[in-house]
Amino acid sequence: MSADNPWQTLSSREVYKNKWLSVREDQVIRPDGQEGIYGVVELPYSVGIVALDAEGRIALVEQWRYTQSRVSVEIPVGSSQAGDADPLDAARRELLEETGFVAADWLALGSIDNGIGATTDVAHQFLARNLSYQGAVNDPEESIAVRWAPVEEAADAVRTGKITESSSVVAILKTTEYLAGNDRWVPK
Amino acid sequence: MSADNPWQTLSSREVYKNKWLSVREDQVIRPDGQEGIYGVVELPYSVGIVALDAEGRIALVEQWRYTQSRVSVEIPVGSSQAGDADPLDAARRELLEETGFVAADWLALGSIDNGIGATTDVAHQFLARNLSYQGAVNDPEESIAVRWAPVEEAADAVRTGKITESSSVVAILKTTEYLAGNDRWVPK
Repeated sequence: MSADNPWQTLSSREVYKNKWLSVREDQVIRPDGQEGIYGVVELPYSVGIVALDAEGRIALVEQWRYTQSRVSVEIPVGSSQAGDADPLDAARRELLEETGFVAADWLALGSIDNGIGATTDVAHQFLARNLSYQGAVNDPEESIAVRWAPVEEAADAVRTGKITESSSVVAILKTTEYLAGNDRWVPK
Repeated sequence: MSADNPWQTLSSREVYKNKWLSVREDQVIRPDGQEGIYGVVELPYSVGIVALDAEGRIALVEQWRYTQSRVSVEIPVGSSQAGDADPLDAARRELLEETGFVAADWLALGSIDNGIGATTDVAHQFLARNLSYQGAVNDPEESIAVRWAPVEEAADAVRTGKITESSSVVAILKTTEYLAGNDRWVPK
């Protein structure tokens, strides 16, 4: 227990693991001094990319999401992999895999903690511009369709709740404001 | 398998469960026709509240986050409980628990899917105004300190990456723009 950490970890064991995530259960002493457990879902960081073309359109991916049992409209998002050097490297790979495009200009939009009470999932957002087509290499475990929509249409979809995936919401919010001349939300 | 659902679930079993989350592993046939597994982390929906006082300050909660092993600055957020009638009801309870305040005016800001690739976590955001103090009832499993900060300071903390919890980022973004007269992001 560090000076700042009010939790004490007594022991830790892995209770589940698959190719994409693992779960550990720690025996802890809580901040209130009582003994208890903490289950932590360990996920690699993920990335989300707003890919903006010369006509002001962005790539939207529509796919069935198994967790929610419904179709979800999103920007290209995905988990980092062992070979990714850093979030930008992961974003380049993910953009190419899902759309077939590479981008000459990248702007980091920040990151968010998804479900910080239970998971380690950190999602990094990027704005990718100056695109050129190189050819898609789809992940065989995914079934995705890409379409290009005006950024204003994507912004409306965020407002009306048609786009709800967290990385997509944050990245479209920040990008739309940034393109409108509002640089309040972009890291300097 | 519905007409739209490209996945087929062959079987499902619970592989872990604690008081806050459960994990199930499904045997599936993937969209590409291959057999595989899908691990789903089942979490109850959560809520996040921007509580705005008459001086333009919002409630920020600073607490150690066990999952990330660091302090996190957030708006009041928390998981729904069995007794919550709906997200707004959960938000009222959470705001009272974490700050001791009740609000006469509530505005729904939308919802986000946290980690949609692996979890069922849906987080709903609200703007709460017209506050009155009723007295705090802190959850004994949490150790939290509330302070009131100008909304502009919270916005800066989002931009600079001092605030990264997903519900907080989205709710502060939407609230800041809304208070500045930009209603593009608030559901109508």
